[in-house]
Amino acid sequence: MSDPLKFERAGDDERINLAVGQPSIDLIPKKMLQTAAARAFNNAPEHAFNYGDPQGEPIFRAALALFLQGQGQTNARAESLFLTGGNSQALDFVCERFTQPGDVVLVEDSTYFLALQIFKDRGLNIVGLPYDADGIELPALINAIETHKPRLLYTIASFANPTGLSLAEARRAEIARLSKQHDFIVAADEAYQLLHFEKPAPKSFSHFLTDGNILCLGTFSKILAPGLRVGWLEVSEALMPRLLASGWVNSGGAINQMASFIVTDCLQQGAQALHLSTLRHTLAARAAVMQSALKANLSELATWTAPEGGYFFWLRLADSINTDDLVAPASRASVGFQPGNFSSANGHHPNYLRLSFAAYGVTEIETGIQRLRTVLRQH
Amino acid sequence: MSDPLKFERAGDDERINLAVGQPSIDLIPKKMLQTAAARAFNNAPEHAFNYGDPQGEPIFRAALALFLQGQGQTNARAESLFLTGGNSQALDFVCERFTQPGDVVLVEDSTYFLALQIFKDRGLNIVGLPYDADGIELPALINAIETHKPRLLYTIASFANPTGLSLAEARRAEIARLSKQHDFIVAADEAYQLLHFEKPAPKSFSHFLTDGNILCLGTFSKILAPGLRVGWLEVSEALMPRLLASGWVNSGGAINQMASFIVTDCLQQGAQALHLSTLRHTLAARAAVMQSALKANLSELATWTAPEGGYFFWLRLADSINTDDLVAPASRASVGFQPGNFSSANGHHPNYLRLSFAAYGVTEIETGIQRLRTVLRQH
Repeated sequence: MSDPLKFERAGDDERINLAVGQPSIDLIPKKMLQTAAARAFNNAPEHAFNYGDPQGEPIFRAALALFLQGQGQTNARAESLFLTGGNSQALDFVCERFTQPGDVVLVEDSTYFLALQIFKDRGLNIVGLPYDADGIELPALINAIETHKPRLLYTIASFANPTGLSLAEARRAEIARLSKQHDFIVAADEAYQLLHFEKPAPKSFSHFLTDGNILCLGTFSKILAPGLRVGWLEVSEALMPRLLASGWVNSGGAINQMASFIVTDCLQQGAQALHLSTLRHTLAARAAVMQSALKANLSELATWTAPEGGYFFWLRLADSINTDDLVAPASRASVGFQPGNFSSANGHHPNYLRLSFAAYGVTEIETGIQRLRTVLRQH
Repeated sequence: MSDPLKFERAGDDERINLAVGQPSIDLIPKKMLQTAAARAFNNAPEHAFNYGDPQGEPIFRAALALFLQGQGQTNARAESLFLTGGNSQALDFVCERFTQPGDVVLVEDSTYFLALQIFKDRGLNIVGLPYDADGIELPALINAIETHKPRLLYTIASFANPTGLSLAEARRAEIARLSKQHDFIVAADEAYQLLHFEKPAPKSFSHFLTDGNILCLGTFSKILAPGLRVGWLEVSEALMPRLLASGWVNSGGAINQMASFIVTDCLQQGAQALHLSTLRHTLAARAAVMQSALKANLSELATWTAPEGGYFFWLRLADSINTDDLVAPASRASVGFQPGNFSSANGHHPNYLRLSFAAYGVTEIETGIQRLRTVLRQH
């Protein structure tokens, strides 16, 4: 398996690097952020520059709750929200607060490759769960719960990385119930929850907060700007004290105080909601372009399901192919993708690959897929 | 022991809360930050708004290296620096990368109370070391190394919290040597390193990077603005790969990308260096006022050594007194302090208390000390 930990950024070399799950520069509303930053730094309460409320400033949490309500998370409340440095930081933090090395974490197998690294960093034992078009298969989950007594279940609930699939609403409700019954924590990574193309994603796990031990992870990285490093956890009253008991959070006073005020301004002005609406259209258009390009170039070499939201296509090649072996030839052909086994706890799905349509515009997406065809044909 | 984890902010109630180790609002250069933020958001490279280099952007690290060189850390190099979210985040991160639950961490006993909480959160066993006016006593350290086989030594090397004392240069060199000989990590918290009043602090641990297993922790929280949540680790070439292998850091791409660009602007413009110079004078003046007020009000009730830098006075009361018992009466008298046993791994120093002169101006410091006298007299 290739080293999954080398940081890669679209645009750092000549490649059209469809491996990287980041927004392209033109998806980031720089002008809006400049205005928001100027206003935030001029208008923020004086204490904003000092240590802040470890949970995140009330003004940020109130604006975020209103925004989430407007996006259909009707029960979002300022008291249930906790400022994070984005979903990966939040996931590591959840592990800090709720797990011990040696604990079992259940994941969709396939899942976010760096989540797997985070769990390894924490000494957790990762158990992969099978999934179908509606997400995690419940009989297998129940079996895994009984066999492994997990401490944590990590799910990318909507438009998942890497599969693009969403967990059906009824399964969310059942997973919440099971988490209470069997005393484990559900970390629901909803980085892509709001990035639907037409039909909204199934109901956020935030609707099941009190039905189970749910921590709902949201982020502005995919819908505003990753560089701000602002995200949130939404949790029940029962779980919040565990977050607030962290020594380093208390000491620092809030992970990213000033950036949260910039986001607050974007929320209060309605700019975030407007931007999100534009973003959905742009991503939908890019997904459509990638779908056409794939059909035109790879229909004899691969199968896939067109995603209904998020950032990714997940392609299945012939069973004889290990996509790890294609990374170097692809790189020589100036195209990048993420090999399937990156996303598996158990090295499954070696004949899959992940493509992001977020990091490049339509012309580059078309060119990238053409290059990929050349690589696959020559293999 | 009182709950050490309640977040307290100067100005959140009627008290003059000399417990809190934060800068007062007027010590934070709001205008300078407004200008820097505007420039940073307008001039930053486009990728600044996206995921960044996990180590921190080269432009930030280069500006920081130059600044540190200018402050006497003559060997500071961009390649040795790593962006953090401030020293407490950095300390937790160091624990993540270098310790396992059950490992032993050595600390000065007394030390930063939330560092103790961070170590407890990580399941570490804390062993306190005695200190004299020159910091950690080496014979006791050597004994502790042999007895406990520590994984980590945490020291607040200069103008320490809570004692105000500094570790002598020769001891730093010897501790570096011992860390290599006995294979443990030194986390040198230098939050106050640059905050001398007259004579600079002993040489930063950054000068001993390659002599031992040293991680040098610096932060802009005490010298610019805590709300930015920007700090740094300085480490040798040998240790850097361990930091960069973190899943969540790789995933996020840098803990606090945009805020680091704001700081970069302050560094590049020379504004940080100028502000630091003013800050030293202000803190020195406040320390002098606190020293006078203590002499006038508490000379019969307490003993102390006037600090030569940093944020804190560390007062010893009669052996019969437990300063924990004074917190409530002091709060009723509208004054706050931090009880001595907060700072001890083993509940030592119950007859001590910590006062910060950073969070209030001179008039409030004088009033606060007068109130404290009333409380102590009535006890």
